[in-house]
Amino acid sequence: MSTTAAARGLEGIVAAHSGICWIDGDAGVLAYRGIDIHELAQKSTFEETAYLLWFGKLPTATELKEFRSHLSSGRILPKEIIQLMQELPRHAMPMEVLRTVVSALSLYDADEKDNSHDANVRKSYRLTSQIAMIVAVYDRIRKGKPLVEADPSLSHAANFLWMLNGEKPSSTAERALDVALILHADHELNASTFAARVIAATLSDMHSAITGAIGALKGPLHGGANEAVMRLLFTIDKEGADPVEYVRKMLADKKKISGFGHRVYHTEDPRATHLRRMSEDLGRASGNPKWFEMSRQIELFVKEEKKLNANVDFYSASTYTTLGIDVDLFTPIFAISRIAGWAAHVIEQLDDNRLIRPRAEYNGPAYPAKYIPMESR
Amino acid sequence: MSTTAAARGLEGIVAAHSGICWIDGDAGVLAYRGIDIHELAQKSTFEETAYLLWFGKLPTATELKEFRSHLSSGRILPKEIIQLMQELPRHAMPMEVLRTVVSALSLYDADEKDNSHDANVRKSYRLTSQIAMIVAVYDRIRKGKPLVEADPSLSHAANFLWMLNGEKPSSTAERALDVALILHADHELNASTFAARVIAATLSDMHSAITGAIGALKGPLHGGANEAVMRLLFTIDKEGADPVEYVRKMLADKKKISGFGHRVYHTEDPRATHLRRMSEDLGRASGNPKWFEMSRQIELFVKEEKKLNANVDFYSASTYTTLGIDVDLFTPIFAISRIAGWAAHVIEQLDDNRLIRPRAEYNGPAYPAKYIPMESR
Repeated sequence: MSTTAAARGLEGIVAAHSGICWIDGDAGVLAYRGIDIHELAQKSTFEETAYLLWFGKLPTATELKEFRSHLSSGRILPKEIIQLMQELPRHAMPMEVLRTVVSALSLYDADEKDNSHDANVRKSYRLTSQIAMIVAVYDRIRKGKPLVEADPSLSHAANFLWMLNGEKPSSTAERALDVALILHADHELNASTFAARVIAATLSDMHSAITGAIGALKGPLHGGANEAVMRLLFTIDKEGADPVEYVRKMLADKKKISGFGHRVYHTEDPRATHLRRMSEDLGRASGNPKWFEMSRQIELFVKEEKKLNANVDFYSASTYTTLGIDVDLFTPIFAISRIAGWAAHVIEQLDDNRLIRPRAEYNGPAYPAKYIPMESR
Repeated sequence: MSTTAAARGLEGIVAAHSGICWIDGDAGVLAYRGIDIHELAQKSTFEETAYLLWFGKLPTATELKEFRSHLSSGRILPKEIIQLMQELPRHAMPMEVLRTVVSALSLYDADEKDNSHDANVRKSYRLTSQIAMIVAVYDRIRKGKPLVEADPSLSHAANFLWMLNGEKPSSTAERALDVALILHADHELNASTFAARVIAATLSDMHSAITGAIGALKGPLHGGANEAVMRLLFTIDKEGADPVEYVRKMLADKKKISGFGHRVYHTEDPRATHLRRMSEDLGRASGNPKWFEMSRQIELFVKEEKKLNANVDFYSASTYTTLGIDVDLFTPIFAISRIAGWAAHVIEQLDDNRLIRPRAEYNGPAYPAKYIPMESR
């Protein structure tokens, strides 16, 4: 069989056909089901966006109401799962907890052994609601706070903030998170989505695919990048350093600055545009524009110095911090949103499945190498 | 950015350079680090094979002794992990348990936050030992049997059988399992190994990568195939049907016969050669050659009828059943072996990493699709 040599990391290689997400990296365009992300960020909600991703069209009022009701009634974590989280060591990183608990949830899922299209839609509702709950519940467990019951009357974004903080969010905070969830909901064959499709394509199951995706998202080259951005801002602030000088030195030391550049975009990441504005608006509204201002200085400097654009991760860091969210919840919040895209891709993969099984170009010892007996080694 | 169209399922596309596994699908050759699988199946042990996969050469006597001692001292499951398994519902499929528990194990790993080469080698020792233990321990838990302590004096294969059955295996049984573990230890960029590399390449961690790989292996198009083979043999036996007539009818009904054909091999799967012989030898030695004989009839018929060769899964089914192993442990046993390859690939990926991020060919609504306001939908 002949093989085709590929760029490293499958860069520029088409691995699937997909009708979910359109990206034009040169023009800086991102669209879900053909609709520009700017329109969705301004006019849509996370629920409507998830509907669009899963079903390929915008919902009517009735369809949206039904969709929200499926999500609300999916806001259930079995008591065994709560207990499992209570028994985990308190130092556990939220992403490790999320990966473990999502894996365990398959055991309690009503459609555990059903991998049909319809069952996977039902699992998608449940997992979308449950992933947000796991993040909120575990944060309260590790902080020794009493758990907060889900409120079925709230939006996905508001219910998460309610279960996390134990108080109803302001409409500004709710909308800020809602927009962040829209912006992060899908991004074509990013590494976690691709991992989900590779796993689903063996005809394994939705929980296996999402568990693998969470594991991939955890990585600092993927979802973990916004955490790294915020840790940098904290360090600069703590040392009282000048942001530009600090980053200049990092670049001189050949250190990577997280939150810049993107495999696919060669112009501004269209998601960064919205997150920049949200970071600025939230900073000014809260009377603490420090994180936005530091970010902006760094952005302009890196852009001039390295010709690198801020990506989705760069301003989500200051946005989430201004919303009062802990740094190690940034990547989990990415998951709370990206489950919409993961689910859409798993379902799309299974609707026209083929095992994803590439080849490696062998660069090891020539065949046949001799099996040298132990006494002669 | 230009993209290159790819065959569906990345068939024939090179996704990585690798020095671990050499496959010539036309000639029916499989080699680890250049050494033919036939030589390894005849002369090596699982431990020596794992050393070869991880370190690129056969070990000296001292190196092998040290390697076995690392595996032996890795035979520890934290008491919290045992408790977690005891609390899972008894209907849980062993693969779901394995996926969940491996994910949870990162929380108790001494190198939890260390993703260095050396830490990942240490994690590989531990995970190799722990995966075998999880399978044995969970099987005893679900059957209400007392747990069996690991025996550090035993080989990897013998310790698994000891912890599973509570009695020391015969040397025939130990060697049969040992050879099966050698044969399954690696297979280049199969779907689970590829999933592990995609996850690892985000710079996530070994446990995330292996958890994702287990989720992929669970699929019936991958590790789940040998379970499907055995369920077919059981059904034929229960119905008292003629194996050939039964399979003939399945083919007429356009049903897939598991255990035949392979994405990469276009001739006999070299692993099938050994498993066929083992199945036959074990069947005759145990005085129950029924499963081998049924398998052989089906193999000859499918080969003649469909020109399809038996693959690694076909004879592993009858081999494991003759060893007295439950059907739903077949895929977990695959994992007990394949962890050697997964670990080697994760370490190789990280030694020269690049994010694995392909593109999709978009086939959805044309951009820009209009965001139609709710009232006009």
